[in-house]
Amino acid sequence: MVFPVPAPLRARSSSPADLVDAAVAGDPRAVARLISLVEDASPQLREIMTLLAPRAGRAQVIGLTGSPGVGKSTSTSALVGAFRARDLRVGVLAIDPSSPFSGGALLGDRVRMQQHATDPGVYIRSLASRGHLGGLSWATPQALRVLDAAGFDAVLVETVGVGQAEVDIASLADTTLVLLAPGMGDGIQAAKAGILEIADVFVVNKADRDGAEHTYRELKHMIALTGTVDGRWQPPVLKTVASRAEGVDEIVDAIADHRTWMAGRGVLDARRRRRAADEIEQIALTELRARMGDLRDATLLDSLAGEVVAGTVDPYTAADRVIAGMTGEGAIIG
Amino acid sequence: MVFPVPAPLRARSSSPADLVDAAVAGDPRAVARLISLVEDASPQLREIMTLLAPRAGRAQVIGLTGSPGVGKSTSTSALVGAFRARDLRVGVLAIDPSSPFSGGALLGDRVRMQQHATDPGVYIRSLASRGHLGGLSWATPQALRVLDAAGFDAVLVETVGVGQAEVDIASLADTTLVLLAPGMGDGIQAAKAGILEIADVFVVNKADRDGAEHTYRELKHMIALTGTVDGRWQPPVLKTVASRAEGVDEIVDAIADHRTWMAGRGVLDARRRRRAADEIEQIALTELRARMGDLRDATLLDSLAGEVVAGTVDPYTAADRVIAGMTGEGAIIG
Repeated sequence: MVFPVPAPLRARSSSPADLVDAAVAGDPRAVARLISLVEDASPQLREIMTLLAPRAGRAQVIGLTGSPGVGKSTSTSALVGAFRARDLRVGVLAIDPSSPFSGGALLGDRVRMQQHATDPGVYIRSLASRGHLGGLSWATPQALRVLDAAGFDAVLVETVGVGQAEVDIASLADTTLVLLAPGMGDGIQAAKAGILEIADVFVVNKADRDGAEHTYRELKHMIALTGTVDGRWQPPVLKTVASRAEGVDEIVDAIADHRTWMAGRGVLDARRRRRAADEIEQIALTELRARMGDLRDATLLDSLAGEVVAGTVDPYTAADRVIAGMTGEGAIIG
Repeated sequence: MVFPVPAPLRARSSSPADLVDAAVAGDPRAVARLISLVEDASPQLREIMTLLAPRAGRAQVIGLTGSPGVGKSTSTSALVGAFRARDLRVGVLAIDPSSPFSGGALLGDRVRMQQHATDPGVYIRSLASRGHLGGLSWATPQALRVLDAAGFDAVLVETVGVGQAEVDIASLADTTLVLLAPGMGDGIQAAKAGILEIADVFVVNKADRDGAEHTYRELKHMIALTGTVDGRWQPPVLKTVASRAEGVDEIVDAIADHRTWMAGRGVLDARRRRRAADEIEQIALTELRARMGDLRDATLLDSLAGEVVAGTVDPYTAADRVIAGMTGEGAIIG
């Protein structure tokens, strides 16, 4: 017979199961603690992810990217407001590639937080992008899963659109918003191939400024040039003035349209499967590299190296034994 | 009862065993064919390396690196002459990072070959450095093993001393020569930390030019600054005019001194073990990445991704299954 542990006791001990229960019940401190465990690559992650798995899969993941200065933070804040107006809970993960040790990230948090700080339906968190050069933090998919399981209807992942991060965000999100601003025409030309690949919705922010119409028409032209391919989503181009929340509601509509379009064609499921496959592969490679590192410290690799030097074993057979050793270890530990 | 296949038949079929036998017997075409199989990452490599293993381990591996313009090719050619004068067989692997598709490499070959083209005691081969950004080709350790097993007493590995290649060559060679030339004082300052780490012997080439004495003294000063650490090899600084073969015999003496010093302290064996460990690790990682790629094409990863999306499996457990799948496959194939 199992005696249930009283709730107060469970809460104090803060086991993974308690944290997950509390996060699912809407406790923002539990959400924060879980994401910190993700960031720290805690050994408890495995247990946490097992507990989260059956609870995740409902949130819509929205990527938001663009060059510095297009108004990403302001747009994120306005979008959060628009989602809240529809009574949807919103999580925000702001990936900050410029500040791997979170000084800038925390400042950004504070500025952005102000408007929504007292709203229990909003959770905003910065993730440092350490680990990947210019890419998203490897913690991002798992931080997403925490917010997803904690019942947020939408999770916005905001990142500066430079290099690898731009590609990563598209492979992570259900819908990717690419933000532009007037007077960045050269940028559009340069980024043409890249942003057309990844954008599900284009947003021309600062639409009250000179040149907004030019940027808008240039984007429309680019999209037309690629032609209307049957069965392919045509990214809409929206105009916003995020600082006054103008046009932001239309973004939420466009996101919903895109979701409906994807769901009707099996695209949503395909994107999520690809995202899960990426995540699995990333975890597997990280695990294999860690095991390889362990072997460096252990005796197996050194003794095999000795045999290769002596000529009693060839390096391929030695590599086979290393792989077998890695997996053997894993079977015992895991 | 086993019927031995007659020799002529074996030779014509060019099986790995025949090629290895022919290479060990001194056939340069067999050596060339084996290195090509290494470069092409042939599926026969595993069998070839098994056959080569007991035959390798005798050659002394000499790394030769330096900035463009210091006279690496001329020095290599002069060194080959000095080794031949002592009746030693010499293999040369010229790593050409600038020409991944061997156009330049072939030209370089021809120029260098001329002097030693008719000498059966010399084998010169260019390897493109494809695969590693700025580093040595991953084929290099295995090409080394071919030349080693084929009975070459010394193998010179020549590479441009830029970035990763410089570090790679030091981890590959028993003795690393760093070449400098007068008038590159700034280069010495910049590279200071790096070249002091890797050089076992310094060579100031073009010693008949202005500034050679300055470069020589600067090097001596640098070495003195690091202090005489007990039990550590003090790299000698030699002066050469490689184009006239002046001072080159002294390099061969210095290499021999270094070898004697290493052998007496167990350093030679330690270096070779570390080299073998690097090679095993490289093969294992390449193999694991290939298996991961196979999984992408197969159904396992996709079906696991589906389960993660459905929430029936967490990504860590999925990664475990991927790793198990990789090794299970490997056990059957390998």
